[in-house]
Amino acid sequence: MWDVAEELNAMLVFAEHRYYGESLPFGNKSYSDSKHLNYLTSEQALADFAKLIQHLKETIPGAQNAPVIAIGGSYGGMLAAWFRMKYPHMVVGALAASAPIWQFEDLVPCGIFYSIVTNDFKKSGPLCSESILNSWGAINRISSTVEGLKWLSSAFRLCSPLKTKQDVAVLKSWLSDMWVNLAMVNYPYKADFLQPLPAWPVQVVCKFLKNPKLSDKLLLQNVFQAANIYYNYTGAASCLNTSQSATRNLGLTGWYYQACTEMVMPMCTDGVNDMFEPRKWNFQEFSEECFKLWKVRPRPSWIVSVYGGKNIISHSNIVFSNGGLDPWSGGGVTRNITDSLIAIVIPEGAHHLDLRASNPGDPKSVLQARAMEVQYMKQWIEKSRHKL
Amino acid sequence: MWDVAEELNAMLVFAEHRYYGESLPFGNKSYSDSKHLNYLTSEQALADFAKLIQHLKETIPGAQNAPVIAIGGSYGGMLAAWFRMKYPHMVVGALAASAPIWQFEDLVPCGIFYSIVTNDFKKSGPLCSESILNSWGAINRISSTVEGLKWLSSAFRLCSPLKTKQDVAVLKSWLSDMWVNLAMVNYPYKADFLQPLPAWPVQVVCKFLKNPKLSDKLLLQNVFQAANIYYNYTGAASCLNTSQSATRNLGLTGWYYQACTEMVMPMCTDGVNDMFEPRKWNFQEFSEECFKLWKVRPRPSWIVSVYGGKNIISHSNIVFSNGGLDPWSGGGVTRNITDSLIAIVIPEGAHHLDLRASNPGDPKSVLQARAMEVQYMKQWIEKSRHKL
Repeated sequence: MWDVAEELNAMLVFAEHRYYGESLPFGNKSYSDSKHLNYLTSEQALADFAKLIQHLKETIPGAQNAPVIAIGGSYGGMLAAWFRMKYPHMVVGALAASAPIWQFEDLVPCGIFYSIVTNDFKKSGPLCSESILNSWGAINRISSTVEGLKWLSSAFRLCSPLKTKQDVAVLKSWLSDMWVNLAMVNYPYKADFLQPLPAWPVQVVCKFLKNPKLSDKLLLQNVFQAANIYYNYTGAASCLNTSQSATRNLGLTGWYYQACTEMVMPMCTDGVNDMFEPRKWNFQEFSEECFKLWKVRPRPSWIVSVYGGKNIISHSNIVFSNGGLDPWSGGGVTRNITDSLIAIVIPEGAHHLDLRASNPGDPKSVLQARAMEVQYMKQWIEKSRHKL
Repeated sequence: MWDVAEELNAMLVFAEHRYYGESLPFGNKSYSDSKHLNYLTSEQALADFAKLIQHLKETIPGAQNAPVIAIGGSYGGMLAAWFRMKYPHMVVGALAASAPIWQFEDLVPCGIFYSIVTNDFKKSGPLCSESILNSWGAINRISSTVEGLKWLSSAFRLCSPLKTKQDVAVLKSWLSDMWVNLAMVNYPYKADFLQPLPAWPVQVVCKFLKNPKLSDKLLLQNVFQAANIYYNYTGAASCLNTSQSATRNLGLTGWYYQACTEMVMPMCTDGVNDMFEPRKWNFQEFSEECFKLWKVRPRPSWIVSVYGGKNIISHSNIVFSNGGLDPWSGGGVTRNITDSLIAIVIPEGAHHLDLRASNPGDPKSVLQARAMEVQYMKQWIEKSRHKL
């Protein structure tokens, strides 16, 4: 983005989303209950951006007539696309990077996300995904005895030893999140987005996972090697903590609340098309969970009602970029919809690789994607100037 | 609309706006305070329509794939246009009749509305607007004595006699509203929209108002004749009531609340380009009034922020129809913006004449307008079928 901004002679503005970071509408009471959280919605966030743009135009010398482009990645990419859809008078276009605007209702199969994760591992090392698939059974078998629990706790160097079935479930979900996040941040160079990691981290962990037929204990020792790369690449941790999230400080509490209201993204696994334990999408269970946590019930169809789902043909000037390696590309727009709703797929790209600063390790495909993005942006700006 | 619906083989659905009629979200508490009124916004109304359309499609056999067109007049016309702008995935187009979407902020001069009212009277009888202009001074002079107040009360056959300056102000505002509404419903045939009225009611009242140079008393007696047409056309009233509104039961309380929050429409008069006592637009005063009434402050720029003001070029498939006689046409879209944002002006038309049932008294221009509207609707439907 920095390079692109320079090329366009543009100002980059990072708008903090309400309820995240320091943008707390009710200070430290913002998360106290659903009444205070009630204003945490994507629509309200878009309205904030509208007011922010107006404010910037009114207060920054020379900004009044400057064309604006919305840019974002992931949820921010959805917001960028939706902002252009709902406030086309305020932005000449939007770059929506890795924006899964179709990961809602039944717009895409619920298994697509985890099957892409699995494909990444398949491509990154021989028998890698099979090893991971087999690891779940190994954990289940070993953890069925008290002795096994002890062994597991020690083999994974866990800070607090496993005691209950619930603890084992947490361990599995902690590992599962890790595989997912490794796929998301499978960047071609050393990076530090969710965690500090080496280049092509999926290849790195797959080096430990070449033999799915090993004994349970040997297989799990290899899984530990992988976990130690992800959760302890710097080598500074003396033990691993399964309550440590795989994504550090992305503001997950806010996101969980949003997932429990508007942002309902159905996900499922089957252990056949993916390397995870089978788990159906269960809306009822999810809804109960949300009610327990926040006293709210999710509205699974609202996002499609308000933003149009697959029927977005009336809109214009949006580039949807997706990484072929990114599990979120499953819910993304990966084919052109019209001449001005453009899809760019970066085969070697993970989660919004194109938005990152350029790097000598960048594959050619991301350089091409960035060049195309700049071309479209220039067109939007040019066209808007003619209309003035 | 009925004829058009038949021609298109369409179902007509009249959606009642939340907080109006029987659509009270909190029953009889809905208007109790600003907390309960908080959900009365145009955005929430649009979301209601989105959910209503989904519901109809899911429950009415054969409706699932039927194209939908938004239709409305006046505020309903604004909603129709805005609905197409914000939910283009739900309607193939919108007919926005007499929709003053630009009567906000400084998008049009604040005096345009009253100057169109005045032009109607100018065109409807010689010296008619001059007579009305002079009537304000006559009222001021006569009401300056106790005897004059008595005379005025009797001459206007008022149900409660005028006693204070405030009473006189109410009388003038009651008359002013009447002139405005006569212009709005200046239909070419007998009608009963805001009040039961004869054909071309402005011409009818102007027959009493041909001589602005009369003495104060004679001039005001003529104004009474006009008021008696508007407020008592059936002849059933034994006295006239200045607290009776000029618009009967349009649900004004809801509208006043909306005017005090989102729908801030600046209006002014100068007594030069119009036939009214000069009155500047005073936002501060208006805001204070709103705070007194509802404990809310208006946000005068929000409607333009959210719906784009004059910058609506990105949208499509909206026909804006306006009556040349309608004061609301001043804030309406009266010139084509693009090939698919079309303006139709009906020179002899008052407030959304085109939406009314066809009538032998219809001027040719409204027949032409309706035919054009049907043509556009057919095009939108046809195009949407190709896209399926």
